[in-house]
Amino acid sequence: MATNHLPHTLSLLARTPASLDALLRDQPDFWTQHNEGGDTWTVFDVIGHLIHGERTDWMPRAKMILESGESRAFEPFDRLAQNRESRGKSLPQLLDEFARLRAENLTALRALNLRDADLERRGRHPALGVVTLSELLATWAVHDLTHVHQISRVMAHQYERAVGPWRAYLGVLKCAGHSE
Amino acid sequence: MATNHLPHTLSLLARTPASLDALLRDQPDFWTQHNEGGDTWTVFDVIGHLIHGERTDWMPRAKMILESGESRAFEPFDRLAQNRESRGKSLPQLLDEFARLRAENLTALRALNLRDADLERRGRHPALGVVTLSELLATWAVHDLTHVHQISRVMAHQYERAVGPWRAYLGVLKCAGHSE
Repeated sequence: MATNHLPHTLSLLARTPASLDALLRDQPDFWTQHNEGGDTWTVFDVIGHLIHGERTDWMPRAKMILESGESRAFEPFDRLAQNRESRGKSLPQLLDEFARLRAENLTALRALNLRDADLERRGRHPALGVVTLSELLATWAVHDLTHVHQISRVMAHQYERAVGPWRAYLGVLKCAGHSE
Repeated sequence: MATNHLPHTLSLLARTPASLDALLRDQPDFWTQHNEGGDTWTVFDVIGHLIHGERTDWMPRAKMILESGESRAFEPFDRLAQNRESRGKSLPQLLDEFARLRAENLTALRALNLRDADLERRGRHPALGVVTLSELLATWAVHDLTHVHQISRVMAHQYERAVGPWRAYLGVLKCAGHSE
């Protein structure tokens, strides 16, 4: 039996919205509306992407594992949905929406009362093949972290020139953008 | 005349402590007391390092630029100080200390009433040579981001196996550790 990671997963998932809110709410557009060039994402785009995951990815996939097992593959995740869904919204609106959806999803997740045997149940990812519910929930948490990692990098990029020669010492400015 | 980045710098520096507090306070040790192997840092170590910077690095260097210009090189930054200074403390104590020192430093920084010409004043870094006050303050902000970036990576590392095959999709797990 694999380790039951659920308490750690819940503990992390519960904290991400408030942490991003504290970092980003009422920041000047300088930090939140600029990207790393080309078609990379702004901080605003990333929050829209996190919202889309709350709506369509994590809990729907968890329920599909519990209901259909490996018989049905997950819907692929639309990585550009936020371009439509965030349109006309402000960053504070997106932060509120993310926090509300996350809280609702964690309430629903806790209500499932998952036991060790449930966490080992299997589903089918359209590209990765067989995965377990435990892996899905752990991925939800690390997906938060990958986007915290990306947000710190996108923000740092805006100051690449401002730091002058210190550029050489600041690891975040050397990150190769493996985070999307 | 370079852009005056001070308002953006202040806006970021003011938010980091609350953002890290929301992410980390009362997390299980699983997330905060494990590193990436060898002599890499835990999240606990990183907060101690941020505290040491507040005490000895950023504002003392800013004052040295204003008082001594290029005539005197900065003290080198002790990157291992937290091993002594954090001993016997809890993570909530460190988060409180970081927030208090940061608030005090920002009060002191605002009280300097820096003007554009002040921001162009020069100091001497022991390894990098001539730097400006503007670059120092921008580096203070990106130093926060580099450690947010590191914290997200160190936490994600704890789940490297838990995510199973999703490992391939999660950029933070591929980050080469350029963040210290």
